[in-house]
Amino acid sequence: MRNKTVLSYSGGLDSSVLLYKLLSEGDEVHCLNFQYGSKHNETERQKAKAICAQNSVPFIDIELPFVNKLFNSDLLKSGNDLPLGHYSEASMKQTVVPGRNTIMLSIAIGYAESIKAQRIAIANHADDHGTYPDTRPEWVASMSLVAYHGTFERIKLYAPFTHFLKSDICVLGEKLNVPFKETWTCYAGGTVHCGECGACTSRKEAFENANIPDPTEYQT
Amino acid sequence: MRNKTVLSYSGGLDSSVLLYKLLSEGDEVHCLNFQYGSKHNETERQKAKAICAQNSVPFIDIELPFVNKLFNSDLLKSGNDLPLGHYSEASMKQTVVPGRNTIMLSIAIGYAESIKAQRIAIANHADDHGTYPDTRPEWVASMSLVAYHGTFERIKLYAPFTHFLKSDICVLGEKLNVPFKETWTCYAGGTVHCGECGACTSRKEAFENANIPDPTEYQT
Repeated sequence: MRNKTVLSYSGGLDSSVLLYKLLSEGDEVHCLNFQYGSKHNETERQKAKAICAQNSVPFIDIELPFVNKLFNSDLLKSGNDLPLGHYSEASMKQTVVPGRNTIMLSIAIGYAESIKAQRIAIANHADDHGTYPDTRPEWVASMSLVAYHGTFERIKLYAPFTHFLKSDICVLGEKLNVPFKETWTCYAGGTVHCGECGACTSRKEAFENANIPDPTEYQT
Repeated sequence: MRNKTVLSYSGGLDSSVLLYKLLSEGDEVHCLNFQYGSKHNETERQKAKAICAQNSVPFIDIELPFVNKLFNSDLLKSGNDLPLGHYSEASMKQTVVPGRNTIMLSIAIGYAESIKAQRIAIANHADDHGTYPDTRPEWVASMSLVAYHGTFERIKLYAPFTHFLKSDICVLGEKLNVPFKETWTCYAGGTVHCGECGACTSRKEAFENANIPDPTEYQT
């Protein structure tokens, strides 16, 4: 039977590769895109919507205005200036939106049960484990239990990149012909990748480490 | 040290008793009230807001308009007519909002981390285990792991009524002087408790079984 899968889809490199992986496996994919008030949300959303349209995949808008209003993070419009520098630095902690992936997957669980999907999917990966608690293997295991026990249909969580580096994701994405140039990573909120924020730095490094030409246009 | 606790607070009987329990234990409580488009949401919200004001407890509105728009449940304005009858009947499955408690607690986790609260709380109880997957002990255990592993501060989940019957909650509420009459249970969407829906039936039975006079005004 064909899997029906609800994907938490940002339009970034990682979740775009996961979308192409799911499609290559024959899944019927439904993409949820979350608007939570980050500085780069609108650019990300346009990229996500365009890639969904190219693949005839349903694109579903989910608005979470309370996050920007109530939560504390420099990734948000309500936060301070974004810290620049390497992704692994302590300052990157300021870019964490508390509970972001937990909230997104919870909504994916409810939507999956509503449309009778068998599983939910997220593109968390190992480069994020140092900074983001809700990307780590123990969090994935816990969310899997929530999806299983909290639903009638025992929904499954698919998080195949949990132990992948971002460079591994690039390697897979090249094999799957992911249009890397059309994906969006930058946190800074412009219309061209800044090349300086933590997210841009990690994107650059991933292509380098994977020995794949980086098609991204960077400002710096 | 005084506990800071984020409570998922509907204004219903159960979560009102939990609010009074937390206050009696000396907690600094912050109440999140979720507007997800149920037929009875606005009445519930007014009751919740009034009880918070009486106790000088912060009342925080969280709007989740996507639930009514995208999810499948007869509890929602977008659903069919509400089934009447006993709470334990199979028809009550139609009133389940998929992932509702999972979503509410996930948002509580993010908010708790943002305001440096040590724990989140929910008033799920044992009468609901038959109908609602996201009230059961195994779901509580799983959500506890998510709160712990998905945050920097290892937030704890407090769900002290998981093994209480609703009548046990009434007994505790009477001891804590909870203003039962000001709490709201009915699912039907009116301004007086209908007395016929599954939620009203269970409220009536809980007072009866607890041997406590029921101060609620019912239409039937």
